[in-house]
Amino acid sequence: MKTTVSSATKTVIIGDDQPTVIIGERINPTGKKKLAAALLAGDLEMVRQEAIQQVAAGADILDVNVGVAGVDEVALLPEAVKIVMEAVDVPLCIDSANPEALEAALEVYQGKPIVNSVSGEEASLQRILPLVKKYNTVVIGLCMDDDGIPQNDPEKRVAIARKIVARAEALGIPREDILIDCLALTLGANDQAGLVTLQAMRQVKAELGVNLTLGASNISFGLPERELLNTVFLSICLAAGLNCPIVDAAKMRPAILAADLALGRDSYGRRYIRAYRARLKAAASAP
Amino acid sequence: MKTTVSSATKTVIIGDDQPTVIIGERINPTGKKKLAAALLAGDLEMVRQEAIQQVAAGADILDVNVGVAGVDEVALLPEAVKIVMEAVDVPLCIDSANPEALEAALEVYQGKPIVNSVSGEEASLQRILPLVKKYNTVVIGLCMDDDGIPQNDPEKRVAIARKIVARAEALGIPREDILIDCLALTLGANDQAGLVTLQAMRQVKAELGVNLTLGASNISFGLPERELLNTVFLSICLAAGLNCPIVDAAKMRPAILAADLALGRDSYGRRYIRAYRARLKAAASAP
Repeated sequence: MKTTVSSATKTVIIGDDQPTVIIGERINPTGKKKLAAALLAGDLEMVRQEAIQQVAAGADILDVNVGVAGVDEVALLPEAVKIVMEAVDVPLCIDSANPEALEAALEVYQGKPIVNSVSGEEASLQRILPLVKKYNTVVIGLCMDDDGIPQNDPEKRVAIARKIVARAEALGIPREDILIDCLALTLGANDQAGLVTLQAMRQVKAELGVNLTLGASNISFGLPERELLNTVFLSICLAAGLNCPIVDAAKMRPAILAADLALGRDSYGRRYIRAYRARLKAAASAP
Repeated sequence: MKTTVSSATKTVIIGDDQPTVIIGERINPTGKKKLAAALLAGDLEMVRQEAIQQVAAGADILDVNVGVAGVDEVALLPEAVKIVMEAVDVPLCIDSANPEALEAALEVYQGKPIVNSVSGEEASLQRILPLVKKYNTVVIGLCMDDDGIPQNDPEKRVAIARKIVARAEALGIPREDILIDCLALTLGANDQAGLVTLQAMRQVKAELGVNLTLGASNISFGLPERELLNTVFLSICLAAGLNCPIVDAAKMRPAILAADLALGRDSYGRRYIRAYRARLKAAASAP
């Protein structure tokens, strides 16, 4: 199954026979005090800089989230989307819990973006899916519902994915426009968290055939050596069918390229070797 | 399926519901000039030091290989095995292409070792399996035969594994005493090499149910950033059913512990966190 997203000038294809697509996660104020303060002041310069840096680091798509308590997202999200569209040419993943803000951003977006996200919650399904249909976007479906995130039960997460796909298809949204996020919770709180996510991903892929996204770095929250744990978990997820993780491109792209090579998705290792040489060159010219 | 190996005082259990078992690879002169020279001179002090260092780095089993052109392995291998048994208490994996050397080492070994290796070659099956039976050892079966290593055909590697298991069982060697190595070749020469190994491993595990070993670091031979590529490939293999990789414990144990945590095999993340703290402590007390 092929999922197509685009900016005004660039198309990105997500699918099992494609190299892994990186959705850059860093335009998001959660846990970032400086960015949160800038957004509260209506200052989008940091957003612009992050966009440029993430694309330079190899992000194929950028997530854009300006959600901070006190910010008027309906006004700010479309402004942020415009600034990022001016700064870089990659497609965007428009990320908000506020449907009005999503719609305001979709109004100004040029191309076919990703909406992040709909969940299995009834209110979310009713409010977000019509936007996805109206604006002809791709949408991320989160495996949580009105009862929260099913903890140690991969089958329940799969059931939510099934529901999201069914409800979307009932509205005429094609299955290839749905990316399922089976959700990663920290191993620090539950040592079965990784396995639950993996089992849900494998089953969603096998049963529904949809492409998969994942905010993978949550897995290591609160644990030491997060980058190693993220690298290892991400590698396993990519082998299990994850297509477009939401990660820090600067930290995770080398591992993703290594996984694509290990999984036979990098002809002659060209992308792996080219990226290695580019990093050598960048390191040599660093001040 | 549970595979049990032992030294005079220590038992190690290999199985899908067990943490990953690390077979330390460094007592092997291939590509190590200093060690090769020492072995040619009959000097086993480096072997002793390597044994101590690998066990300190967390190796659960040690591979012992003294094969250098010009060395009398029949004399030296049992000496090396004795020295390693005196230096450390972990079980050993006795590694030689020479059946007489293997037998001489098995004569002195105390416990139940691993014999590394038998292959699907007729001469190997006929010569090695009776030793495995006579000395009641575990044996590594390599997925290669008289035609060499099947390149892009996982099914052919599986067929060789099937043959090794059948021939061993015909001699009364129980299946749990067989570890299959599906063989990793470098991605530098063949970009499908990783996938072929992975597919063979998954099928051997599904069909034969045996435990799996792998000399995993071959995958990155000749490529840049070998440690990253090894980490990523090893993670994927561990998720695919690899039980006891043959690796450099000092380099790969952190990733292996991260994979065990990610795969739900580390209760409360205790081993992962304990090893992290031990590394912090070692780094702080390093000269």
